Amino acid sequence: MKAKSPQKLPFSFLQLVGLLLFAGLPHALSGQGMDYSADSAFIKQIHDYTLSESHCYDWLRHLTKDVGSRLSGSPEAAAAVEYTRQLMESLGLDTVWLQPVMVPHWVRGGEEVVRIVESFEGSHFDLPATSLGNSVGTGPEGLRAEVISVQTLEEVEKLGRARIEGKIVFFDRPFDQTEYYTFRAYGKAVDQRVWGPSKAAEYGAVAVLVRSMTNSTDDVPHTGTLVYAEDQPKIPALAISTRAADLLRRQLKEGKVEVYIRNHCKMLEPTLSYNVIGEIRGSEKPDEIIAVGGHLDSWDVGEGAHDDGAGCVQSMQVLATLKHLGYRPKRTLRCVLFMNEENGSAGAKEYQAVSDRKGEYHLAALESDSGGFTPRGFRVDGHEDIFDAKYARVQAWQPLLKHWRLDLSKGGSGADVGHLKGQKGLLFGLEPDSQRYFDYHHTDRDVFEAVNKRELELGAAAMTSLVYLLDKYGLN
Amino acid sequence: MKAKSPQKLPFSFLQLVGLLLFAGLPHALSGQGMDYSADSAFIKQIHDYTLSESHCYDWLRHLTKDVGSRLSGSPEAAAAVEYTRQLMESLGLDTVWLQPVMVPHWVRGGEEVVRIVESFEGSHFDLPATSLGNSVGTGPEGLRAEVISVQTLEEVEKLGRARIEGKIVFFDRPFDQTEYYTFRAYGKAVDQRVWGPSKAAEYGAVAVLVRSMTNSTDDVPHTGTLVYAEDQPKIPALAISTRAADLLRRQLKEGKVEVYIRNHCKMLEPTLSYNVIGEIRGSEKPDEIIAVGGHLDSWDVGEGAHDDGAGCVQSMQVLATLKHLGYRPKRTLRCVLFMNEENGSAGAKEYQAVSDRKGEYHLAALESDSGGFTPRGFRVDGHEDIFDAKYARVQAWQPLLKHWRLDLSKGGSGADVGHLKGQKGLLFGLEPDSQRYFDYHHTDRDVFEAVNKRELELGAAAMTSLVYLLDKYGLN
Repeated sequence: MKAKSPQKLPFSFLQLVGLLLFAGLPHALSGQGMDYSADSAFIKQIHDYTLSESHCYDWLRHLTKDVGSRLSGSPEAAAAVEYTRQLMESLGLDTVWLQPVMVPHWVRGGEEVVRIVESFEGSHFDLPATSLGNSVGTGPEGLRAEVISVQTLEEVEKLGRARIEGKIVFFDRPFDQTEYYTFRAYGKAVDQRVWGPSKAAEYGAVAVLVRSMTNSTDDVPHTGTLVYAEDQPKIPALAISTRAADLLRRQLKEGKVEVYIRNHCKMLEPTLSYNVIGEIRGSEKPDEIIAVGGHLDSWDVGEGAHDDGAGCVQSMQVLATLKHLGYRPKRTLRCVLFMNEENGSAGAKEYQAVSDRKGEYHLAALESDSGGFTPRGFRVDGHEDIFDAKYARVQAWQPLLKHWRLDLSKGGSGADVGHLKGQKGLLFGLEPDSQRYFDYHHTDRDVFEAVNKRELELGAAAMTSLVYLLDKYGLN
Repeated sequence: MKAKSPQKLPFSFLQLVGLLLFAGLPHALSGQGMDYSADSAFIKQIHDYTLSESHCYDWLRHLTKDVGSRLSGSPEAAAAVEYTRQLMESLGLDTVWLQPVMVPHWVRGGEEVVRIVESFEGSHFDLPATSLGNSVGTGPEGLRAEVISVQTLEEVEKLGRARIEGKIVFFDRPFDQTEYYTFRAYGKAVDQRVWGPSKAAEYGAVAVLVRSMTNSTDDVPHTGTLVYAEDQPKIPALAISTRAADLLRRQLKEGKVEVYIRNHCKMLEPTLSYNVIGEIRGSEKPDEIIAVGGHLDSWDVGEGAHDDGAGCVQSMQVLATLKHLGYRPKRTLRCVLFMNEENGSAGAKEYQAVSDRKGEYHLAALESDSGGFTPRGFRVDGHEDIFDAKYARVQAWQPLLKHWRLDLSKGGSGADVGHLKGQKGLLFGLEPDSQRYFDYHHTDRDVFEAVNKRELELGAAAMTSLVYLLDKYGLN
């Protein structure tokens, strides 16, 4: 594309309708005391500052390149706690503190082998593989068994102990590529990874392989948590890359396939860690809390850049931006970096428990944990007792958000702030464009270089804009 | 982010308003004979097919990895013509043909040097640089001169011959990072690159350096066309990377800076090349043409993946998808791969001239030349005599497009289809997310790996959906 005239701001028919309604129904907004032009100007200021002078991209560089991956219980997770605590201190917030929480401490333990063993000597083929988080290891000897492929948990039940016992169960159901929203495709496939190992163990399987959770066809295996059922034997489980899964599928069509697996994962004793929290105390309604956050832990592969370094630095940027612009919040604004989202959510549970115990009220909580991509809007969730009324309230802000091409829609907020539903505030999840997310998710490709500076910053600016509106107008 | 429940489809307040209007004003759509549910189902089919079975990503791999960059007049451009001609033949279109056009043949000529020469012996610093397209070369001796920095063309005029003569003029105005739409930032900065060299020459400058046209701060220089004024001496012009520009700016603040430049560019004799065209003849109104296209040429750096291999393969995919789905168009659907968009637009001019001569009528023309990123909608343009009426017509389709998060907005369509304005059809430009575009634009980073498969496919599906609606309903 060569030089051409600048594009005009998009101004769609529906936006027009929105503005006509806005003009025609003044009570809808002005009745709530909204000052559209002042808000519009301040939200522009937020974007201008974030796109030209903010620091979140540099913070992300440090968190990913210098600290690195941050699995719960690891020294790197401890470094991330200390780095972000110091960073929040430097922002001049009113209070910064660490909230102690015991977290699981799982270690991968090095080398991982998934090898197709042919019937004739010397013909081996190693598949790109990664142990699932929380998996047990095979021990140094490894194990070797025939593979049986299934598409669903139900298929394991149907095949029964006669067909499953002594085998390695291969969960092979792929992402549905026709889902526009990749998180939906993930939601439709991930039961295999989470519950597959114990379901297979229930029928006597010795190990589990899972097709990686991604839209992409490549050689990159994707880790992620499994959850062992209390009452079943714990068997080793690994993800293999999608290309490896395709290969294994072809081999299985031709006949019997044996696979040799070796890994060394271990669950160690729980470790003391922390949620990192900073707040600006509200000047008028300090007891109404607006929280914004992401999770500080990550998997041990890659650098946890999109998942969820991006959400952490964006959340800190929200408070930093408002502080820089001299905005004095009416309500208490709190940045919460949750520990252990990936394999236990101990941080979110502890944050909620402490908050409930203190009788706190989160008017709103906003999570960013869907990657540092161009923001498309926010998903909104909440307790059914209050949802409709409060959701109607935020819809009055649509014209202000539409200008930045942000939509509000009903949907899940996030794994961490979701725990606060009982406080009956409104829960929000930043919704970035989801198309590339599962190219990186839980892999060694989730590194700093995969995050675009402007896309990250636009997410931070979107979040700051929403927090500003929540603080200024509340939800009643 | 770990396992969570699937997201719900977004359904915003404004969409609701749109649908209420849709329900409340049945004549608006049904008066035009629209069948919302059939259209909605077919557009879903288009997306399903494109996201799961289409070939455009593989075509792009061939065009970028096997053919490579495709500068007008180069052997690679000829290979691209032949490859896409054969490809279109294989799609079973009614007619495929090559439209001859003479194109400029500029060559970079190898090595390019931009060196800061310090006052003491031996202290040199080479800046990452790339000659601007169409630039003359310095010749083997190169040239050395003092640098003077300016922000605008007007500043050159103000400084006048006394300050400019004998110098290298450094155009240093950066992108405005606060522009949400990066093409706007480009539009506000690119006059320096296009017109800067002749403006500087007018006042006696010996060469020009330009800060690269990008939002990114890095070491990657961005080429792109310059246009020499007929009545001015042609002087060499090169872009330097943004980090190099920052360095040069700092040095100039400290005092006099001399720079040595050497490059070997040449404009050769014009060369015969082709637009590649394929069409499916309309079954009811064959004289109403709906064209879809991109440009087949690219700069000689990188692989021309986003610019504009993506647009080419998407355009071919539109016809391939409709063909595959058994859709029989009423109107003539034409795929046009334009030659020489980057440095002359000879292909677009020839296409328009031939079309006008034949008395053709393009009911609509849709261009994809803004990168293979997630589509956000379409920009719509047209001759003022017809624009308002026809634009109102397409707005009736908003609810169908909104489901796929596509907006219609007024704005420029594209450098190639823009030539067809005189035929008084409607002109469309696919509008992908623009945030990353200028990380790659006209650089050696614009390679296949920079394009995400799903994002590319969603663009193709969006284009196919619009072409389907245009064909089915026309614009009257």
